[in-house]
Amino acid sequence: MVSFEQTTAIPTTMSTPPVLSSLSNQQIRLASRPAGSPTRDNWNFTTEPVAEPGPQGVVVQTLCLSLDPAMRGWMNEGKSYIPPVGIGEVMRAGGIGRVIASQNADFPVGALVSGSLGVQAYCALPGDQLRRAGLVRIDPRVGSLTQWLNVLGMPGMTGYFGLMDVGQPKAGETVVVSGAAGAVGQTVGQLAKLKGCRVVGIAGGQAKCDFVVKELGFDACIDYKQGPVKDGLKAHCPQGVDIYFDNVGGEILDAVLTRINRKARIIICGAISQYNNPESIQGPKNYLSLLVNRARMEGIVVFDYADRYPQAIAELAGYLKDGRMKSREDVVEGLETFPEALLKLFSGENFGKLVLKVSD
Amino acid sequence: MVSFEQTTAIPTTMSTPPVLSSLSNQQIRLASRPAGSPTRDNWNFTTEPVAEPGPQGVVVQTLCLSLDPAMRGWMNEGKSYIPPVGIGEVMRAGGIGRVIASQNADFPVGALVSGSLGVQAYCALPGDQLRRAGLVRIDPRVGSLTQWLNVLGMPGMTGYFGLMDVGQPKAGETVVVSGAAGAVGQTVGQLAKLKGCRVVGIAGGQAKCDFVVKELGFDACIDYKQGPVKDGLKAHCPQGVDIYFDNVGGEILDAVLTRINRKARIIICGAISQYNNPESIQGPKNYLSLLVNRARMEGIVVFDYADRYPQAIAELAGYLKDGRMKSREDVVEGLETFPEALLKLFSGENFGKLVLKVSD
Repeated sequence: MVSFEQTTAIPTTMSTPPVLSSLSNQQIRLASRPAGSPTRDNWNFTTEPVAEPGPQGVVVQTLCLSLDPAMRGWMNEGKSYIPPVGIGEVMRAGGIGRVIASQNADFPVGALVSGSLGVQAYCALPGDQLRRAGLVRIDPRVGSLTQWLNVLGMPGMTGYFGLMDVGQPKAGETVVVSGAAGAVGQTVGQLAKLKGCRVVGIAGGQAKCDFVVKELGFDACIDYKQGPVKDGLKAHCPQGVDIYFDNVGGEILDAVLTRINRKARIIICGAISQYNNPESIQGPKNYLSLLVNRARMEGIVVFDYADRYPQAIAELAGYLKDGRMKSREDVVEGLETFPEALLKLFSGENFGKLVLKVSD
Repeated sequence: MVSFEQTTAIPTTMSTPPVLSSLSNQQIRLASRPAGSPTRDNWNFTTEPVAEPGPQGVVVQTLCLSLDPAMRGWMNEGKSYIPPVGIGEVMRAGGIGRVIASQNADFPVGALVSGSLGVQAYCALPGDQLRRAGLVRIDPRVGSLTQWLNVLGMPGMTGYFGLMDVGQPKAGETVVVSGAAGAVGQTVGQLAKLKGCRVVGIAGGQAKCDFVVKELGFDACIDYKQGPVKDGLKAHCPQGVDIYFDNVGGEILDAVLTRINRKARIIICGAISQYNNPESIQGPKNYLSLLVNRARMEGIVVFDYADRYPQAIAELAGYLKDGRMKSREDVVEGLETFPEALLKLFSGENFGKLVLKVSD
């Protein structure tokens, strides 16, 4: 089945709490594990009733979902930093929603929340699963809903702790970030500028490069579609590269490895160029540059920093408020468009943090 | 020319200082850069008079030379942690020698010294080049001459600082080291045992594996010639791998990457499996295990720790003295055998630290 069997009108305003039994929950479930790029056949579109909240539980209406490169990894079998999504399960996704039914005083009806809601119109969470879903209330005065999925959400946290804790930037150093116009790249580059670094982005296409330099204030941006990244690094990193925040892997990682400085730090955040590679991953053949330069390559998983999110959010929200940091989101509408929307991440089609708007 | 034009008798005892002009200095110079494995054609065998020491200078008779995997890298063109050996230059090599002529009170005639002597029978060092050659006096009561090239020399220093500074072992952790019977591997494994770790070596052949376990006291040793390293790691590292000290690169690095623990440290010391690879280096295709495990891969160059050598030597000499650490050297005789002796490192033929004995 490649679409929902039936589409039920989803209430888009809420003057009075809805009767849950009158709602039908559209869900997108993992039907099979993709080899290479996921297709519509890898998904099942199901509709089921919305459950009542149990003791201490809540029902959340999904407003918008975060679409992230990491989702591709969750579709694969095998050990990783979190278990894979099981066949037949609702696809995992972080999102923002509104509480529409509640037996929990911390999350009253009407409250806006962030958490792992899944690719579905409603998320019914029993009381004992709120913590596992990472449910927290968000304040729309601090940032827009889409900013709460971007700079103030997982991508922002990833960029913040990857750069600050693993990268440890010092003023005057040169920081390079790939996927520069993407969700994590935006935060990394702007934050590195605020810390006094020279910042060079890598992105695909003139429009993204212009955005990164003119809107976000990077010192330069290399268009990997226009010519060898190595040449761009030579031109724009005359003092070499001290920190490389890698979101893409593959040839670009190898190119940066040829330009790193002594004691450079490479933050391995992702490898989007490799996620749909049905062959084995391409390893960095220039990794011995780590030896020559006494450099370090280190992985980051954002969940490790959960107890410090509030500190990072406070700092980043301050930058957003006083205009020192900007954010850009690419909003796609409609739960049903999820299969194709996700693919925009891998083609590089999205421009800014990719968000799926599910409801108003 | 593939051998020395003439062989002059080299004085092997020294009751009275020799007349320098009566000595002829046999030297092995780089004739061309090898593609792949070096052959005899890549070397020139020359003989020249021994120069008088200038002001503050010394002349050192080479007693033994250290043959190291890193030498293969010095033969290549291109930027590295030290400049390549120039075509026509005497091949670079660290060694132990005896001062036979001196105008420097710090290095009197008869003193034993360690430093970059080159692949030659005598090394005449002007006063302004002593520091560049890293010339230091050594005490034969602290260790044998070959130990001064092994545990107390560059391999020992590399193992010591790589393990202690980059690896930061904690008691109870599992440490894996490749090239376990080799110069660096011996020190790393024995030191890690002394620090309370579980230590698993990787080496080629039953004899080396037996030596590593029975003589050096490793907990286990995986024979990479006998079966998949991955299976050996599963069997011998039931708690996973916390520290991997990599001397070999290639498939073995990839196998270990599948078994690392969260926050693991991988020390990149060398990649002997790749040095004679005329194709491009094989990158670790499992490097994303660094991400999943929030692990770190970091290069080490021993020269960075030069000011702390004395501290490391003192500690290691203590272990040698009280028998808590053993050393094994593989001694090959005769300067002229250098081209073939060097290749033993890459075939895995050497058993212990490879030393070329040049004179008594």
